[in-house]
Amino acid sequence: MATASKGYAVLSAKAPLVPFSFDRRDPRPSDVVLDIEYAGICHSDIHQAREEWGPATFPMVPGHEIAGIVTAVGNAVTKFQVGDRVGVGVYIDSCRKCENCLNGASHYCLEGMTGTYNGLERDGKTVAMGGYSNTFVIDETYAVKIPGNLDMSGVAPLMCAGITLYSPLKHWGAGPGKKVGVIGLGGLGHMGVKFSVALGAETTVFSHSAKKEDDALGMGAHHFVDTHVEGALANATKGYDLILNTVSAEIDLDPYLRLLKLNGTLVMIGLSGKPYAINAGTLLNQRRSLAGSMIGDVHQLQEMLDFCGEKNIVSDVEVIKADYINDAYERTVASDVKYRFVIDASSF
Amino acid sequence: MATASKGYAVLSAKAPLVPFSFDRRDPRPSDVVLDIEYAGICHSDIHQAREEWGPATFPMVPGHEIAGIVTAVGNAVTKFQVGDRVGVGVYIDSCRKCENCLNGASHYCLEGMTGTYNGLERDGKTVAMGGYSNTFVIDETYAVKIPGNLDMSGVAPLMCAGITLYSPLKHWGAGPGKKVGVIGLGGLGHMGVKFSVALGAETTVFSHSAKKEDDALGMGAHHFVDTHVEGALANATKGYDLILNTVSAEIDLDPYLRLLKLNGTLVMIGLSGKPYAINAGTLLNQRRSLAGSMIGDVHQLQEMLDFCGEKNIVSDVEVIKADYINDAYERTVASDVKYRFVIDASSF
Repeated sequence: MATASKGYAVLSAKAPLVPFSFDRRDPRPSDVVLDIEYAGICHSDIHQAREEWGPATFPMVPGHEIAGIVTAVGNAVTKFQVGDRVGVGVYIDSCRKCENCLNGASHYCLEGMTGTYNGLERDGKTVAMGGYSNTFVIDETYAVKIPGNLDMSGVAPLMCAGITLYSPLKHWGAGPGKKVGVIGLGGLGHMGVKFSVALGAETTVFSHSAKKEDDALGMGAHHFVDTHVEGALANATKGYDLILNTVSAEIDLDPYLRLLKLNGTLVMIGLSGKPYAINAGTLLNQRRSLAGSMIGDVHQLQEMLDFCGEKNIVSDVEVIKADYINDAYERTVASDVKYRFVIDASSF
Repeated sequence: MATASKGYAVLSAKAPLVPFSFDRRDPRPSDVVLDIEYAGICHSDIHQAREEWGPATFPMVPGHEIAGIVTAVGNAVTKFQVGDRVGVGVYIDSCRKCENCLNGASHYCLEGMTGTYNGLERDGKTVAMGGYSNTFVIDETYAVKIPGNLDMSGVAPLMCAGITLYSPLKHWGAGPGKKVGVIGLGGLGHMGVKFSVALGAETTVFSHSAKKEDDALGMGAHHFVDTHVEGALANATKGYDLILNTVSAEIDLDPYLRLLKLNGTLVMIGLSGKPYAINAGTLLNQRRSLAGSMIGDVHQLQEMLDFCGEKNIVSDVEVIKADYINDAYERTVASDVKYRFVIDASSF
């Protein structure tokens, strides 16, 4: 039976979000049905709602940072029970048979992962509607359990912003004895700092906002470099194993690449949308790498949540009501949020 | 006692090479003295002789692909005896105490490795003279043994061109089950093909010269992609673990990056000297990396030579007399050599 749902949608490109009622698809045997408690606002929601990333599907209910409670389970469900706290992230399905899906990297599915919204599900007809809503329906394979000690509003952004930073930190071995840099202290960057510190790495924040220094140090960062200061990067201590670039502004990457030690890696997470000019000589020197990373696999999402439960890590959030979403979009674009907006789904 | 030597030198930037007599420094207790048999001509010799890479030291005896025979050893030498076949590569010393030197990466010495020519030795006064000569003097630590079964003329280019390809292939795990691409089939590229094939990787040559296909396949390459054909890269089979770019021409790297599978790496070896425009979105997709690599450590140089002895691998060379060096330079610049010029040191 379809699940009657209320949420907020964009009806056409660049239109404001408005209240929207719709039906979720009939649950299948392997599905869980959720009451959403909180949904985070990701900058990528705004890009898609405004059709800045190519043709989009309207009406669009954005949202891929979802924390909710199971209200029903299909008869083939084994992982979840009614009442469980469940998270849903950036994708809800994948081909399940390609090399990447079979090797714990379904977020890099070679057929393309199925996004949580802005497209069709793999049946080719159901429009995927996202998390700015009071319900959700998802195959249990792509949902994860939320530890009981974590605040649900702070968990929601972990599902995208969190995993986007956790995954490269783990992939490139952040931990004791390693020096990690995080460029930018926003929704993404602040999660990078929390995870890097919790993993035991010596952590530096590079920010052009001197006023973020207190926050950075408060989150456990060991060093803060104000990149607005002339020569700050050229004079910064070298020897980084890993630097994560979370900013989407166009920046010169060469000064950061030069801070990397032998075999060090600069990982792109934020993108300006324009090509970056890379001095290959800087890569040759010290065998450095420039890499990219995109969210994380659903298994890693579970690993991250378990780690968050153990370390008591959540996102710093500003909880809003649904009728504030359009204002929150403007403030997100202006980087005026500490550090993530999260919608209280009871307000839909 | 100083070693009277004959060779060819460049007396000032862009001047032709001319016969040149000089003394090698007095051997120290840990030094070996060599009679050089063969010295390879590397494109970087030409760049330095013509002062295209910044201020150079003249008179300059170029050459860092050296194969010779030990004629004398200092009383502290333990690795070599008179009569041993010895190779010398791109550097002859390093600080021996930095993190990289102490961890088998002295070619990335944080104080800067000491080049085989075009500069001073670490005593701050001895001008380092390279391999276009009939003798050499070097601390045994930075010299390697040449297996007895290998032709000395074909060994000389292994000391730079060889290790430059062997090192990244080993570092990024080329071997059975891996797909490796080599962009460009010249002095560097042909060594990449030989090593990649010998290591057991499925190997593809990407070249804009269709006429090199026979050579590529003759060296054991499994596939050849003529990049001059419209759409050749866009239509090429994907799924590469590793692609090595050996060309110094400016090329668009994005089509190559798109050929990489999950966690695949494109390694820059050849450099155009200008920045490369990198689409970071291509890196995010499949968590790809763009990296750089520069020669290899002296320990790896020995490992490579032992591997070459076992697999009977040498460079394809055109042996010349000293009085042909200037012509060879012109032909090297025009890529008119299969695949490396090597000077017969008996002609000095």
